[in-house]
Amino acid sequence: MTEPTEKTSRRRFLAGAAGLAAAGATAKAALADPNNLPPNVAEWTRTLGEGVGTKPYGVPSKYEKDVIRRTVGWLTATPESSVSFTPLHQLDGIITPNGLCFERHHGGVAQVDPNDYRLMIHGLVDKPLLFTLDDLKRFPRVNKVYFLECAANSGMEWRGAQLNGAQYTHGMVHCVQYTGVPLKVLLAQAGLKPNAKWLLAEGGDAAAMTRSVPIEKALDDCLVAYRMNGEMLRPEQGYPARLVVPGWEGNMWVKWLRRLKLGDQPWYTREETSKYTDLLENGQARKFTFEMDAKSVITSPSPQAPLNYKKGFTVLSGIAWSGRGTVKRVDVSLDGGRNWRSARIDGPVFDKALVRFYYEFDWNGEELLLQSRAMDSTGYVQPSKDDLRKIRGVNSIYHNNGIQTWALKANGELENVEVG
Amino acid sequence: MTEPTEKTSRRRFLAGAAGLAAAGATAKAALADPNNLPPNVAEWTRTLGEGVGTKPYGVPSKYEKDVIRRTVGWLTATPESSVSFTPLHQLDGIITPNGLCFERHHGGVAQVDPNDYRLMIHGLVDKPLLFTLDDLKRFPRVNKVYFLECAANSGMEWRGAQLNGAQYTHGMVHCVQYTGVPLKVLLAQAGLKPNAKWLLAEGGDAAAMTRSVPIEKALDDCLVAYRMNGEMLRPEQGYPARLVVPGWEGNMWVKWLRRLKLGDQPWYTREETSKYTDLLENGQARKFTFEMDAKSVITSPSPQAPLNYKKGFTVLSGIAWSGRGTVKRVDVSLDGGRNWRSARIDGPVFDKALVRFYYEFDWNGEELLLQSRAMDSTGYVQPSKDDLRKIRGVNSIYHNNGIQTWALKANGELENVEVG
Repeated sequence: MTEPTEKTSRRRFLAGAAGLAAAGATAKAALADPNNLPPNVAEWTRTLGEGVGTKPYGVPSKYEKDVIRRTVGWLTATPESSVSFTPLHQLDGIITPNGLCFERHHGGVAQVDPNDYRLMIHGLVDKPLLFTLDDLKRFPRVNKVYFLECAANSGMEWRGAQLNGAQYTHGMVHCVQYTGVPLKVLLAQAGLKPNAKWLLAEGGDAAAMTRSVPIEKALDDCLVAYRMNGEMLRPEQGYPARLVVPGWEGNMWVKWLRRLKLGDQPWYTREETSKYTDLLENGQARKFTFEMDAKSVITSPSPQAPLNYKKGFTVLSGIAWSGRGTVKRVDVSLDGGRNWRSARIDGPVFDKALVRFYYEFDWNGEELLLQSRAMDSTGYVQPSKDDLRKIRGVNSIYHNNGIQTWALKANGELENVEVG
Repeated sequence: MTEPTEKTSRRRFLAGAAGLAAAGATAKAALADPNNLPPNVAEWTRTLGEGVGTKPYGVPSKYEKDVIRRTVGWLTATPESSVSFTPLHQLDGIITPNGLCFERHHGGVAQVDPNDYRLMIHGLVDKPLLFTLDDLKRFPRVNKVYFLECAANSGMEWRGAQLNGAQYTHGMVHCVQYTGVPLKVLLAQAGLKPNAKWLLAEGGDAAAMTRSVPIEKALDDCLVAYRMNGEMLRPEQGYPARLVVPGWEGNMWVKWLRRLKLGDQPWYTREETSKYTDLLENGQARKFTFEMDAKSVITSPSPQAPLNYKKGFTVLSGIAWSGRGTVKRVDVSLDGGRNWRSARIDGPVFDKALVRFYYEFDWNGEELLLQSRAMDSTGYVQPSKDDLRKIRGVNSIYHNNGIQTWALKANGELENVEVG
């Protein structure tokens, strides 16, 4: 295994770029052959395009209409308690556009009137408080980029390769910049009693989602956020305000947040007992498994993003994240985990946020087994699925952060396979 | 003037938060008076909301329908050569959602079919090349957050306060994460002749926008970008590929990019002679004024974002940027420039990107003159409008980076005023 350094990454980037010609660069000598130009190239130069102001709120190109959140019909009984998946295979960088952030609801999307929105803080506090949205906006605020992952992301994979595509296996994750009030600032306004050790967060949706949060986390980096990527939260992300619990399972990031109650012990709600616990082989269940472990996935090439050529210079790309800190390193294997090479991490590396990685290589046309594994700032290394199963069994739904394998075939197509 | 340090900023943040109670915190004691709850608060808890998958590509809440790009009818003769403005007063953080990025077109929005897209590199090169979009996607790529500002942003203000709102005075700026190929990588593929000193970038739109770029910049940090905030470029931002010229005037970021020609001198196109030059008082014009000078504006409170109270704790917020590097510091004045206090910069500080600043204070209800000024990593300080006029006169359209003043009135409304 190569020890990665900034120098080697940069060297490979430049070597990769320079090596394109040798690897059979795809660009064609142009002027020698004007027949290379398709007939429509000048079409849009000959006529005036759509005027400014036609779309006060812009939308993607009509040619990108398949870049959408997708659902899996058989996965849940009703659309109100269901999930749609982020199209990871069609994205790059680390920011997820708001319109493509996956959804997970338990009672549908609450349509909250911001004028009637209220957030209550009560329980073991000196002074119970009720905030309007305008109140929240008058508190000092911060901007933070965080990933949000559903604890059930990749949950179908516990019993082997199931769903064929990064959108379905790993698409319950997104990453945006939040703007909000540090929760500790709001709690300080109410004044915590000495025995306030836990916090109940409750949503205003039809599921009245409730989760218990330990006070240490609440006073650390949690936010009451009302913006994502600059604009107000989207309805399906909890408009007008949600809890942000950095690095912890998405179910705790209570949407349409209406109540925060301070108590001296957890509430053991449905969502932290019957659900969002991990049933082990011995019949016991892990509970309060809050932190999302380090994880990564190759988003391209992947089953939904095949290669349209049979060999040549190839850019492999993916995302990595850790609920325990920053991603320090990502390794890539082309042979199912026998050999690992360090990937190039590009773009900002934030605490508890997605990072984007690349590995450029010259594909000789052979079949490959593509894998990635993340290492985080605590030294934790993303395990194989089999290593996970040895400890957790296969009864779990949640917290599958095992290494994902895509089999690249000679025709450029890819498949979700099990390599252990 | 206070010398800002991280410590003082943090101290004020905490002091500000703690000071809320003293400043007349707006949150009400809750449980004591159930009449504080509006009648609709529980409405969305009683019925199932919209199901998952109803909106494969999500849209903002119906309550946010006034958060849009706006146009000014009288500003231009036709909508195809016109501008729409980013609603800066309704945003926070540093990422602009793609649907709200301002538009400036010279021949309308070209609707380019990505399958027929071609980019030609020719002129003083060893080997002319023609790239498809798929070709571009096979090159090593990078992710960078950059601001893009039209050179004419704030151009109406040269002759005094004109437009009443940050959206109109400063809304020709946005900031997203781009994904693209470093231009130097593509140029290396073609091979530069020793006398290749300038590059002509040409757009595929009906205006066939053309600008000359010095080779030093082309080989430094320019990108051929095809993504913004993770997804493919929006049509109005040059789908499927545009030039990214970090820190330099937006007009050079040629959209629908179809041609890059290498030459030994600039082309003196219409857009760098008759337009995008700065006519001085003596009749001479500054040309090739590429770099966007350090600038800032208070986005809230501002004429379109008035205060809905008469006094109390107030969060002032704004954006700052510099085409020459990073923003090192932002100062805020409440009295029209007599006294300055350092603002709190929050969130990531990237090279040639927006930064977000805050200044929290207890408004005593008096009329104020709100200003901000940016300082960048070169030591340059944003000048007053009068200081700019002394050197540039008032004939210019472009490159007005003077300090903006909002007059805050006792009723909470604000107005664009001249303070020099």
